[in-house]
Amino acid sequence: MANNKVKNEAITSRDVDFAKWYTDVCRKAELMDYSSVKGFIIYRPYGYALWEMIQAYMDRRFKETGHENVYMPMLIPESLLKKEADHVEGFAPECAVVTRGGLDQLEENLLIRPTSETLFCEHYAKIINSYRDLPKLYNQWCSVVRWEKTTRPFLRGAEFLWQEGHTIHATEQEAREETQRMLGIYEETARELLAIPMLTGKKTEKEKFAGAEETYTIEALMHDGKALQSGTSHYFGDGFAKAFDMKFLDKDNQLKYVYQTSWGASTRLLGAIIMVHGDDNGLVLPPRVAPTQVMIIPIQQQKEGVLDKAYEIQEQLTKSGLRVKVDVSDKSPGWKFAEAEMRGIPLRIEIGPRDLQNQQCMIAKRVNGEKLTATLDEQLSSVIHQLLDDIHEEMYQKALAFKNEHTTDATTLEELQTILDTKGGYIKMPWCGDEACEVAIKDKTAATSRCIDTHIKATGVCPVCGKEAKHIVYFARAY
Amino acid sequence: MANNKVKNEAITSRDVDFAKWYTDVCRKAELMDYSSVKGFIIYRPYGYALWEMIQAYMDRRFKETGHENVYMPMLIPESLLKKEADHVEGFAPECAVVTRGGLDQLEENLLIRPTSETLFCEHYAKIINSYRDLPKLYNQWCSVVRWEKTTRPFLRGAEFLWQEGHTIHATEQEAREETQRMLGIYEETARELLAIPMLTGKKTEKEKFAGAEETYTIEALMHDGKALQSGTSHYFGDGFAKAFDMKFLDKDNQLKYVYQTSWGASTRLLGAIIMVHGDDNGLVLPPRVAPTQVMIIPIQQQKEGVLDKAYEIQEQLTKSGLRVKVDVSDKSPGWKFAEAEMRGIPLRIEIGPRDLQNQQCMIAKRVNGEKLTATLDEQLSSVIHQLLDDIHEEMYQKALAFKNEHTTDATTLEELQTILDTKGGYIKMPWCGDEACEVAIKDKTAATSRCIDTHIKATGVCPVCGKEAKHIVYFARAY
Repeated sequence: MANNKVKNEAITSRDVDFAKWYTDVCRKAELMDYSSVKGFIIYRPYGYALWEMIQAYMDRRFKETGHENVYMPMLIPESLLKKEADHVEGFAPECAVVTRGGLDQLEENLLIRPTSETLFCEHYAKIINSYRDLPKLYNQWCSVVRWEKTTRPFLRGAEFLWQEGHTIHATEQEAREETQRMLGIYEETARELLAIPMLTGKKTEKEKFAGAEETYTIEALMHDGKALQSGTSHYFGDGFAKAFDMKFLDKDNQLKYVYQTSWGASTRLLGAIIMVHGDDNGLVLPPRVAPTQVMIIPIQQQKEGVLDKAYEIQEQLTKSGLRVKVDVSDKSPGWKFAEAEMRGIPLRIEIGPRDLQNQQCMIAKRVNGEKLTATLDEQLSSVIHQLLDDIHEEMYQKALAFKNEHTTDATTLEELQTILDTKGGYIKMPWCGDEACEVAIKDKTAATSRCIDTHIKATGVCPVCGKEAKHIVYFARAY
Repeated sequence: MANNKVKNEAITSRDVDFAKWYTDVCRKAELMDYSSVKGFIIYRPYGYALWEMIQAYMDRRFKETGHENVYMPMLIPESLLKKEADHVEGFAPECAVVTRGGLDQLEENLLIRPTSETLFCEHYAKIINSYRDLPKLYNQWCSVVRWEKTTRPFLRGAEFLWQEGHTIHATEQEAREETQRMLGIYEETARELLAIPMLTGKKTEKEKFAGAEETYTIEALMHDGKALQSGTSHYFGDGFAKAFDMKFLDKDNQLKYVYQTSWGASTRLLGAIIMVHGDDNGLVLPPRVAPTQVMIIPIQQQKEGVLDKAYEIQEQLTKSGLRVKVDVSDKSPGWKFAEAEMRGIPLRIEIGPRDLQNQQCMIAKRVNGEKLTATLDEQLSSVIHQLLDDIHEEMYQKALAFKNEHTTDATTLEELQTILDTKGGYIKMPWCGDEACEVAIKDKTAATSRCIDTHIKATGVCPVCGKEAKHIVYFARAY
């Protein structure tokens, strides 16, 4: 009873108001809090721990593929941002501007980095001379600032945490391979760590990154049928190289421009976890990314032996590599259950005096509420490991089924509109390749092109102009 | 020959120009580079890897002692910084000021954090209600900006990387214990990871942190006899608590103010490593913090079996937990030796055709140039582990002996001046406790009070005013 009481009071139902449900989960699961500056959020310990789990996985993958971490300055001179025309057009309007340093007015305004291409380019131009210096495979973990009018926790913030990789290569082919390699690592991170199946593909000219030749994306589908761009990988060709004079002496003794990539993923991934897996009781965390995988809740903890046993189980499981906590607070068990649920902890173990007698414990699965009994013996940790692996697979398959059910073919704008009005999700349509038609679709339906399917050949005609289709594109309403 | 040639060309000798030697090492060891904004440096892969090693060690120690990581906004409203009078007086003059966001002038100026006490206080005031919510033990890893006029890589920058811990407690005693605990962790980090013996003590009123009741410090002694403040731990009492209304309902049902601490250590620690251990051939890294502990350099690498054996040794050592690289570039061995030396890699293994025949390799110790021969068998990794442990101890003892030799008692200003003019280092003097006398010493000798020795009772008289001494203070010229 206590349990239900807490649940019902705590958060809005997803189907009543999805946006409110989302912010309720963000705050009640203590992932974040607002600061007094609009759009700048506080990453509370639980939210930051989630980000640390993602960082640890991605950082390992980056290093395994030869990347090195660096740290570039937070501030960019205005003149430096202006060196690449498309880039400055895209970013200048949303920069925070430093005009004073200490007590002095600055001679040149400095911009808080909205992204760091220009800084990497300037540095690379200085340090590369020969083909021997290539490739350079750098990454940095930092926060960036973009002055957004409408902000939402993790999804769109004036400041957000991310990683940005910036690489330069001797050949176009190497740079193109790098772009795909990092897209692949993003997709695997989503699948293997977050249990999220991603739609991957290429952005249209209109939607690509400011200054890139090509942008590839991973897109996740939220419970409300809207898409969330969750990571992008860009191929720059030699555009920035020419603007920043990044040249090297090749083996054939010729001076050549480098080929370049950049790729980024951010705390938006936290938003994806919340909106793909969460339910009306709160967060539901995929086991591999959960900061706490098992919460042990003692029942009648004042009774002899209960707490000792709880700690003993914690030690056993921790030794086997699991992340385990015991809730020894003076709250009621029902309250503790609800809190563990709100925080999306994959497994809850209940242990009370009767369990001690029977040498067993109760295990509850967050994902579906299933309960099972397990024997307290040396097998317990392998039972838990297996359960967590199964839960990961279960969550991934559930999300995949949802994505498949919400991917629909359409050939006309009427069909598109009907699908958007009913189930939402991705609408797969032929498109002529003209930006005017892409804009017309957006204006009429509020659906944007998420990506071009690069694996299939286009058939049919553009639903707007009737011309022959050049691409098959996924449209969706998006965050 | 190649070896010596590279060395001599590469860097200034320490005894010729210590300041130039320092920046030479920073750049030639590729720890950092300058950006186009004064005081904002680029942490290159090798420098950042060093910082990551320090982060990993300290983060583990913080978490073991119950601390949680969070992330606070980068920007602070001007009005928020002003809430604590001493604090704003100390920091406002050196803040970078954001006056424009996107295309709009801001209604209130925002300051890039020079430190985040005010943000933590504002958040804590919102989230704590009861003694059950205490203590809160938060830490964050981030960069901060302080508009310094004179900057030097790692030592004093307009932007630097650091961690800042901010904790609140129900009682004064708990907060005081926390202040000492974190000072202890800093001291241990220096000793166990960096092989640096620290002088620890309490700052005078004049030198303490803006807003603190007490500041404790770890001070390292550089090769040139100057001190480097390397980490500080502050006890705030309830000063910020009153300014920010951080109250909680205690067990006795009374509303009380919390007691607070903060503590920070930064990339200055890289400066300490360089200036304590470095020599005329470049960096000398303590083994536990070295990103690469062993560099294997193949001799006549084109000869059959040489590279295979080099990779085999790498695999064997890596499996035993060591950080090992093979230099397979097309440079000459002499050049590779000099590079490994410049980068301070603790051990170099040379392996050539003759070594293959004899089933052995040559090992060179960076710290003193000693060479020894080791047999290529399953014992090799334990030989290397033992060597690295010995090197750590050797480096620590050498630095400790230097510190002891450069700690001198003085009772008059003339003695102080003589010591400063000859060997430098710490000068231990009685002091009356008056700021006027402390300032007089600084004005006359350019030596500042580094810290008060809290372990000994003062005897003697103040060398300036002749009054009875209240404290024994360590004076030194400092960075």
